Amino acid sequence: MTPLRSYIQDRWHTPADAGAPVHDAVTGEEIARASSSGIDMAAALHHARSVGGPELRALSFHRRAQLLADLGSCLRGHREELYAISARTGATPYDSKYDIDGGIRVLLSYADLGRRELPGGDEGVVYVEGERENLSRDGSFLGGHICTPIQGAALQINAYNFPVWAPLEKLAPALLAGVPSLVKPATQTCHLTSRLIELIVDSGLLPPGSLQFVCGSAGDLLDHVTEQDLVSFTGSAATAERLRTHPAVVRQAVRFNAEADSVNCSVLGPDATPGTPEFDLYVDQLVTEMTVKAGQKCTAIRRALVPADLMDAVSEAAAARLAAVVVGNPADPAVRMGALAGVGQREEVRRCVKTLLDSARLVSGDPDRVDARGADPERGAFLTPLLLRCDDPGATAPHEVEAFGPVSTLIPYTSPEHAVFLAAQGRGSLAGSVVTGDPAFAREVVLGLAPWHGRVLVLDTESAKASTGHGSPLPALVHGGPGRAGGGEEMGGIRGVLHHMQRTAVQGGPGMLAALTGK
Amino acid sequence: MTPLRSYIQDRWHTPADAGAPVHDAVTGEEIARASSSGIDMAAALHHARSVGGPELRALSFHRRAQLLADLGSCLRGHREELYAISARTGATPYDSKYDIDGGIRVLLSYADLGRRELPGGDEGVVYVEGERENLSRDGSFLGGHICTPIQGAALQINAYNFPVWAPLEKLAPALLAGVPSLVKPATQTCHLTSRLIELIVDSGLLPPGSLQFVCGSAGDLLDHVTEQDLVSFTGSAATAERLRTHPAVVRQAVRFNAEADSVNCSVLGPDATPGTPEFDLYVDQLVTEMTVKAGQKCTAIRRALVPADLMDAVSEAAAARLAAVVVGNPADPAVRMGALAGVGQREEVRRCVKTLLDSARLVSGDPDRVDARGADPERGAFLTPLLLRCDDPGATAPHEVEAFGPVSTLIPYTSPEHAVFLAAQGRGSLAGSVVTGDPAFAREVVLGLAPWHGRVLVLDTESAKASTGHGSPLPALVHGGPGRAGGGEEMGGIRGVLHHMQRTAVQGGPGMLAALTGK
Repeated sequence: MTPLRSYIQDRWHTPADAGAPVHDAVTGEEIARASSSGIDMAAALHHARSVGGPELRALSFHRRAQLLADLGSCLRGHREELYAISARTGATPYDSKYDIDGGIRVLLSYADLGRRELPGGDEGVVYVEGERENLSRDGSFLGGHICTPIQGAALQINAYNFPVWAPLEKLAPALLAGVPSLVKPATQTCHLTSRLIELIVDSGLLPPGSLQFVCGSAGDLLDHVTEQDLVSFTGSAATAERLRTHPAVVRQAVRFNAEADSVNCSVLGPDATPGTPEFDLYVDQLVTEMTVKAGQKCTAIRRALVPADLMDAVSEAAAARLAAVVVGNPADPAVRMGALAGVGQREEVRRCVKTLLDSARLVSGDPDRVDARGADPERGAFLTPLLLRCDDPGATAPHEVEAFGPVSTLIPYTSPEHAVFLAAQGRGSLAGSVVTGDPAFAREVVLGLAPWHGRVLVLDTESAKASTGHGSPLPALVHGGPGRAGGGEEMGGIRGVLHHMQRTAVQGGPGMLAALTGK
Repeated sequence: MTPLRSYIQDRWHTPADAGAPVHDAVTGEEIARASSSGIDMAAALHHARSVGGPELRALSFHRRAQLLADLGSCLRGHREELYAISARTGATPYDSKYDIDGGIRVLLSYADLGRRELPGGDEGVVYVEGERENLSRDGSFLGGHICTPIQGAALQINAYNFPVWAPLEKLAPALLAGVPSLVKPATQTCHLTSRLIELIVDSGLLPPGSLQFVCGSAGDLLDHVTEQDLVSFTGSAATAERLRTHPAVVRQAVRFNAEADSVNCSVLGPDATPGTPEFDLYVDQLVTEMTVKAGQKCTAIRRALVPADLMDAVSEAAAARLAAVVVGNPADPAVRMGALAGVGQREEVRRCVKTLLDSARLVSGDPDRVDARGADPERGAFLTPLLLRCDDPGATAPHEVEAFGPVSTLIPYTSPEHAVFLAAQGRGSLAGSVVTGDPAFAREVVLGLAPWHGRVLVLDTESAKASTGHGSPLPALVHGGPGRAGGGEEMGGIRGVLHHMQRTAVQGGPGMLAALTGK
């Protein structure tokens, strides 16, 4: 099998060796190979800095926004093809919508933002942030802040769970800022990202040097970063640690953004008793978060924090809904949940569930047995949704161990302060949610969760119809979280663009400041 | 000699051992001892988190702003006493003004900012950032961002050069954000910071647990940080590296801000020929930056980038002014430049100058000889200002070696692009300046410098009278810089407060969002 190609220095690169196998998550068959062997990483980064950066910076913000819009339209025309490849990663059409349509939406959203919030004209490298500050009594000495694109490359190291959304979510703000990208996918699902990059390259839309693609291992890539580069990483905390302490990153204070999996929670309000719409919203959302992408979402609900006296009710209602979830080949229209990304992932999830079961018991599902409609349950990476219940909120494993699959644990709480305390035991999360019709309860819990979270959703009947749900990062809002979640921040509208720019205070007389800022 | 005390858990702590000596920079005599022996660092941090944090968060932003204002007024009443101690660090009255009055100004400036830009009332923990985002067609699902104080402590590790300004510059935004501080001074000048902290504690203004002071070594302090703490460090790149890679910092993605010395440059415009006011402004500023605080400013000009055909003129004019600088005991009113912080520092500067002299020659001063008015030139840490000239702009040492004292090097450039290229050889700086009357030249050079700088000043006749100069960070503007300068950012008005808060995206219906944000 021919290995997938990389795209380096504006040319397709075929690896020098056979590479590592990539498997169909549904059938287990080998469908591709990945290797970065033979790539000169230093030359790739030099190309980004010396060709891609100047090419992008020569365009205005509005021109770059237009590129994003055109790229979005182009990819939209190839949705069906991407969906077909996505199915082989174990994704249902609904999952693919989340990944592929969601990714295209980030491009279009940043295109809009660029036209709306960034300057047009030929001022493509200067964004003036905030107001002028008068630094003297007579107004003859002023200050302000400008943001200019970093002169290096954005190294974008992605996780396997969103092979389309994740690279696009990192590419869009970089491109809009005027910074060239080097995309590295995770090997398990790189065949989908590989096709995405082919479509982008074939579109001919992007200027030379503005996009490169390393399929396979990162090799010695990090050895060659400089102080004007940016590394953004999504994946495990262990890898984040390794990259964060890489000597080249540390020595040069390289911008480093990490987004790591976290043990997110969803809190049910005490008002949301069985029979209320909020009770149903809570259970529905929990089941959705467990089953979308087979629970392989860094934002998925791992801990369901439930008033102690509602534990039985939530447990029964969720178990009933989970029992109706059909697991199997995403090609079958009856299937609601597909496969994990690979059998290796499934083994890892089983190991974590085993640890969780030391302090919890199973409410629904069996980690070792699965019916997979239209597929071989052993060769494909299938697993039933697993709902656990831990009646001791003081147990540590449910707050620490993340089973990165269709797994959640119900945990009881006794007061709003207790719910906040338990949420904080996750030591920093990407996303939390509170399901309640009581604004006072919502306020108390959300403000308690806030220092520990990058995003908190409140769900009630008012917003239920339009709500995008607990697990969906949106381009206009920040995505990231403190502590265990990596301490990073992505997107958040203009904030994501500014992460790719250097903020510089400028000072001078009114005439000079006008020359610098155009204001 | 009794060692200086620390202030831990709201009590004065006298060290268990004799500690390390602290010397008068002017006379060399031992004037104090410093030791952190016997301090339980874990307990100190726990106290900040469990007592200081809740106490501060119980106050509104406006109440905390008032504390800063009261603190500023109180310290203003003790200026003379602080000036007297400051003189023993080698500082002239002008240097002390910079350090002491400058520090008080940061407090007052953040007090103003708190009242002006932060919410009043009892909403002391929520700052709503930016606009609401409509996330649905019918307006039933909205998003926004709130910032809430981190729940940990701010560990503030300071350099020796600004014993008053530096701790206050870090304390003010932390206090306004509602985050308790633990201040650690550098040992060389800790006797001044120690008195500052005594004055603050004795004022009785600050709530329990909101301020602690570790005099002496940091010991195992870093071992006890958690994901809700923040470490802000000013000092050498080597120490920054060590702290940044500390296992507790890395594992928990602890917020880490570094501000390291850098090899800052000042560019003379080709229009500013001898006889123009800008030529004189350039030379005056260069001499000022070399001599204020005996050049021990992380923002001082280390590289004077001068049009090749003006090298002789600048060299002669600067040498003439430097020859008139009287070095000696700050108590003597004729003295313009005092001592370095200690004889150890002087030796380090001499070593660096020796390296610089491999590719440069001396234009003014002698590294090994100094006349010190009213003082013993050997027992006190005196040095004459040393102006070097390197006619080969391609030499590496002048762009890399920072002699942290009254030392600058003249380097020729040939075009605006060349000036920008040379500036970038510093690999990231805190401050740069351009002295020119030509707005087109200013624009080209400033935009070229911007990605490499935290702050850039333009100086011309229009702003000269009111300009605060190349080396002065201001509370309203960001202070920090990429790469070699540490990659951090402090102050910058509200930005400095937000560095102590967690930004959280919140989502929900209009009713819930109003409950969360008060809007």
